[in-house]
Amino acid sequence: MKVSETVPDLYDRNCPHRLVLEHVTSKWGVLVLSALQDRGHRFSELRRRVAGVSEKMLAQTLQTLERDGLVHREAHPVIPPRVDYTLTPLGREAAEALSGLTRWVALRMDDVDAARERYDAQR
Amino acid sequence: MKVSETVPDLYDRNCPHRLVLEHVTSKWGVLVLSALQDRGHRFSELRRRVAGVSEKMLAQTLQTLERDGLVHREAHPVIPPRVDYTLTPLGREAAEALSGLTRWVALRMDDVDAARERYDAQR
Repeated sequence: MKVSETVPDLYDRNCPHRLVLEHVTSKWGVLVLSALQDRGHRFSELRRRVAGVSEKMLAQTLQTLERDGLVHREAHPVIPPRVDYTLTPLGREAAEALSGLTRWVALRMDDVDAARERYDAQR
Repeated sequence: MKVSETVPDLYDRNCPHRLVLEHVTSKWGVLVLSALQDRGHRFSELRRRVAGVSEKMLAQTLQTLERDGLVHREAHPVIPPRVDYTLTPLGREAAEALSGLTRWVALRMDDVDAARERYDAQR
């Protein structure tokens, strides 16, 4: 099925789909969804797993995905405080749809590299 | 299959996959791949189809996708000059993988909107 058949307003400048796509495919969004696809994580675990993310960026990414209904946040009233993050059913679907694309990138990375070399050699 | 099983170095800060994913999921990248999935387009046709894109951004997007081996550019030696853009087999694969994600976004946009309303109401 073609993208344009099923997402008719993708060409609209104010298309609301755009923002969801950006959240799911953002640098940290991809990694957080992927980590949570394996299993639930505490904040501190996610921070270690998603190498290079700052505390602020991770918190912001999680908040965005929570607001979109993709991530469930559960704060446990214990000392020290503990916060668990898991995928919602909607988030699980998003992670699966995303993995089709990331699998393609992984599968074809060598072809893309070869194309770049050919392109650069001609210039 | 899980993202992390198949894209082991996605967590690497310098992961080269990242850039390809960004090109394919970029605002204009999505629209150009989608338009070319329908059929080949001249530059001027693409410009009209992808509403809101500037000439400079469209040229830059096409050049990036051409360099990645996803788009084929063919300049015809006629007056006035004519340049046709089509998807390569690799680009067709990318467009198909992408459409899985954009279909999901279109399918679940209402659920995401509802989640946002619930989230905002609690704050």
